[in-house]
Amino acid sequence: MSSQRATAFVPGHVTAFFSAHPADDPAVAGSRGAGVTLTDGVTVRVSAGDAERATGDAEGVTGDAERATGDGEGDTTIDGEFGSIGAVDDVLAELDATAADVAVETDLPIGAGFGVSGAAALGTALAANDAFDRGRSENDLVGIAHAAEVGRGTGLGDVVAQARGGVPIRLEPGAPGVGELDGIPGTARVEYVTFGELSTETVLGGDTAALSAAGEDALDRLRADPRLQTLTDAARGFARDADLLVPEIAEAIAAVESAGGEAAMAMLGRTVFAFGTGLSDAGYDPEGCRIDAAGARLVDEGDRR
Amino acid sequence: MSSQRATAFVPGHVTAFFSAHPADDPAVAGSRGAGVTLTDGVTVRVSAGDAERATGDAEGVTGDAERATGDGEGDTTIDGEFGSIGAVDDVLAELDATAADVAVETDLPIGAGFGVSGAAALGTALAANDAFDRGRSENDLVGIAHAAEVGRGTGLGDVVAQARGGVPIRLEPGAPGVGELDGIPGTARVEYVTFGELSTETVLGGDTAALSAAGEDALDRLRADPRLQTLTDAARGFARDADLLVPEIAEAIAAVESAGGEAAMAMLGRTVFAFGTGLSDAGYDPEGCRIDAAGARLVDEGDRR
Repeated sequence: MSSQRATAFVPGHVTAFFSAHPADDPAVAGSRGAGVTLTDGVTVRVSAGDAERATGDAEGVTGDAERATGDGEGDTTIDGEFGSIGAVDDVLAELDATAADVAVETDLPIGAGFGVSGAAALGTALAANDAFDRGRSENDLVGIAHAAEVGRGTGLGDVVAQARGGVPIRLEPGAPGVGELDGIPGTARVEYVTFGELSTETVLGGDTAALSAAGEDALDRLRADPRLQTLTDAARGFARDADLLVPEIAEAIAAVESAGGEAAMAMLGRTVFAFGTGLSDAGYDPEGCRIDAAGARLVDEGDRR
Repeated sequence: MSSQRATAFVPGHVTAFFSAHPADDPAVAGSRGAGVTLTDGVTVRVSAGDAERATGDAEGVTGDAERATGDGEGDTTIDGEFGSIGAVDDVLAELDATAADVAVETDLPIGAGFGVSGAAALGTALAANDAFDRGRSENDLVGIAHAAEVGRGTGLGDVVAQARGGVPIRLEPGAPGVGELDGIPGTARVEYVTFGELSTETVLGGDTAALSAAGEDALDRLRADPRLQTLTDAARGFARDADLLVPEIAEAIAAVESAGGEAAMAMLGRTVFAFGTGLSDAGYDPEGCRIDAAGARLVDEGDRR
């Protein structure tokens, strides 16, 4: 089932609350917490560089011949523009696939708390493993993407959550075989509005003691009552206690509540999310999607066998 | 997101090979091995019995008023016929939901190695938890269904595999928190042909020493090279070494191989499965589906919120 090109889809992930657990070993480092994976996500197309050049590439990823030749490295595009994502480069290096052309496409806002960097890393791991026939297992690939994301300081828990799908609870931090996950059963519409960026690196680089204490409290609440409403309740408490709530978000959460709904802030971004039609009911013009049941997966394009 | 009725879908699961690991504690008991989850599966609709009677029930599950009243127990139907599934009854008892009406629907053959009993138990756990608002976590519900299936002797590893989806490798036996899973990344068409039943209870009730030794060998092979082709290779070796291969299956596997494909026997049933178009190419008239990426999940009917 391998090929010289492959495509993976990875759901977006909004973190409701978390506690940071850094460690020297990136497989051990990570976060506890909970969040929601979204049917809005990231599609990653990987082609085995030179092998594709002869045939051309529908995604236009390999159009820039000058750039591609010489260094033996493939190109990365983000929504069609040449660019680079550190965690993606590290995943390709780990899989001995630096010749890959990688096309990352997403409708999600970048840097706004949707785990786009983790999704790009995980999608690259799944698609490159298939395109280059590396024969790694799912746990191996999730671990490689998790280590790359943690190593770049761009996230701690998105990758393992995005691999599982649904509404993941991160009971113990770390890569598969080290960390531990549970989930809240449920299917629902999810609405979100983004007001701009918030730097994950800055927050995670600062003193995370108070934040982590608030995250542990929120996790205890959710484990005692694993329901979607408890997730948003605990998330609001976390945002307050960790002093991360920004004015636009606080206002939106209040508006949703007075409209009879439930909303919370996505960590870490200037993003508010709600289940059902909470944000629409409050008069916002949100993006709408659903909880993603599947988690990260390879997808067939044209039913390739 | 709870309601008085809920629906869950659970993928079918064909086991390629396994080793049996019985234990007094059903959470610890289980099997090692690997298999394939299918987009052909089992849909379970649960309604909170009496609450539904007033409004009637589109599935016709609650039509039999006499049967339903008096004992306070709900009814179970299998493809529209009144019946009972031991593991389903045990799951309802564990969730204090014996008043539930349960409608199990599947296109899969029963008793032919597709894990229908495990799927019915897991789907009942997910749907009853939602319909009765029991607030259990995903791991709890998978554990309850696993214990019910193991307790009834109808399966050892289907439930945890069906909960994960994809192509699960069962590294360590047991319920979530005890067992350990990995997976083979991949997406493919799956074809299958069934020639009849094989009793799981009989095989698992007999001496499983030789079977388990063959299963451990097959698992070692797959862990060393987690690819779909290695799965079918190892499965054929297991069926031979465990002396489970039946003539029709051996014939079908040989026919697929001479047509250039790869097929294997589903454990435990008189069922052969192949990736891609292996069985069609060999002149059989198979059922066709795909690897199920998502695993067991609640599904919205009419986008209920």
